[in-house]
Amino acid sequence: VRLSLNRLSLNQATTKAWTLAETVDGCVRAGIGGIGLWRDRVEEVGAAEAAKLIRRAGLHPTSLCRGGFFTAPEGDERAAALADCRRAIEECATLSADVLVLVSGGLPAGSRDLPAARELVRDALEQLAPRAAELGVRLGIEPLHPMFCADRCVVSSLRQALDLAEPFPSDVVGVVVDTYHVWWDAELDAQLARAGDRIASFQVCDWLVPLPADMLLGRGHLGDGYIDIRRIAASVEAAGYSGWVEVEIFNADIWAAPGDETVRTVVDRFREHLG
Amino acid sequence: VRLSLNRLSLNQATTKAWTLAETVDGCVRAGIGGIGLWRDRVEEVGAAEAAKLIRRAGLHPTSLCRGGFFTAPEGDERAAALADCRRAIEECATLSADVLVLVSGGLPAGSRDLPAARELVRDALEQLAPRAAELGVRLGIEPLHPMFCADRCVVSSLRQALDLAEPFPSDVVGVVVDTYHVWWDAELDAQLARAGDRIASFQVCDWLVPLPADMLLGRGHLGDGYIDIRRIAASVEAAGYSGWVEVEIFNADIWAAPGDETVRTVVDRFREHLG
Repeated sequence: VRLSLNRLSLNQATTKAWTLAETVDGCVRAGIGGIGLWRDRVEEVGAAEAAKLIRRAGLHPTSLCRGGFFTAPEGDERAAALADCRRAIEECATLSADVLVLVSGGLPAGSRDLPAARELVRDALEQLAPRAAELGVRLGIEPLHPMFCADRCVVSSLRQALDLAEPFPSDVVGVVVDTYHVWWDAELDAQLARAGDRIASFQVCDWLVPLPADMLLGRGHLGDGYIDIRRIAASVEAAGYSGWVEVEIFNADIWAAPGDETVRTVVDRFREHLG
Repeated sequence: VRLSLNRLSLNQATTKAWTLAETVDGCVRAGIGGIGLWRDRVEEVGAAEAAKLIRRAGLHPTSLCRGGFFTAPEGDERAAALADCRRAIEECATLSADVLVLVSGGLPAGSRDLPAARELVRDALEQLAPRAAELGVRLGIEPLHPMFCADRCVVSSLRQALDLAEPFPSDVVGVVVDTYHVWWDAELDAQLARAGDRIASFQVCDWLVPLPADMLLGRGHLGDGYIDIRRIAASVEAAGYSGWVEVEIFNADIWAAPGDETVRTVVDRFREHLG
């Protein structure tokens, strides 16, 4: 498969040191048409102002990261998480971003009960989906790599994300496919085919060996690791997805590099490994 | 579920500093009836001598670790890996160990082709199973946690291990269920039920957070981490498994502790979390 460069979106976590305005400018300078947003950087200017900034630059907001962490049992913590996710839905609507990325949360403190935690995710979706539908916002359930199951995300596979999404219309609840999290899965092609128009976002980066001590930061530029990105992209395409492809890289060395250099590498590697 | 203490087996990797004779003695002192073996420690005395040592102590050899790493493509490296695995099968027969644990190997050097690597595992099984059957040895395919997919084991889920085992008689090719590797899997109960008498070994330990920089060593004593060991044991029992339960812990702190102290903790925690 060969993807056109005009499908490239830069997730702003990749240029973490930059403000939203700086990332917007960096995208424009590099001819990148899409931008993936993070709430902390959006909040620095406010969602309405951020939306203007992005629109005036001619960029398309491909995602907003993120809502979630709703595995706390009944109580204040759970109420606060759901309230925060409602705010995220409103911000996503203001920004007209394609999808609000949801990361479910890990096991609640002191608990080893995975099935119960997973039920709490289902329950949160039931509570949030009506509000998302009302505002025309699409929620995207992101399975995280199983190594994050204990402390970050009890949704660990695409199959599981699709099982959770199934009761809802696909334009209200979709799934986020991130190569870092799903590349290992022997079922990946089959589950992508099953996903079809549930695929709300396709995020790419590579898997480094050895992973750094902080496993969150083991992502590399396309081609620097072990993932056959083009093969996965072909399966995503075959499933019917023809949308944006976001490059999202958490990596301490890349964060320490000058933003424009990072953006250039993102574009070059997209051309080489997906173009 | 409540398991009798006489199903406890100590995998000798848990008391890594000890020779085979020392671990055998440690088991006897602690009243542990089973021992899981590693080839490097067995080779120090030779398989025949090791078998005598174990038998004289009245211990049951519950497993031999390990054969595998057969994802190298056609050539000398592959031939050597298969030859080594044939030697492991012979050692397993000499030792009368219940199962030879197989760890498939990761992506071969320079390759990103997961499907091809997985085909090479299937091919290796086809080559090795007849020899195992001939010697009455049971092979156990062990899925490793997906975080080891790139560099250690392209078999990443119980479903996948069972798919690989399926063409063979279950007394020749089974699967190894290790809580560290499979606990996150939303399909675990269903795949255990499917596994039935394919379950050749059940290994237990806990999952620590944060994992240490070397992800191999993130295992803890039962109860020190996030895994609901009793729930998984219940599913393993419900699948029809009534064999040994091996405690296998790779952990730098535990390896630095006196062996007898480790063994005592293993027994205490087995009582508390499985008894």
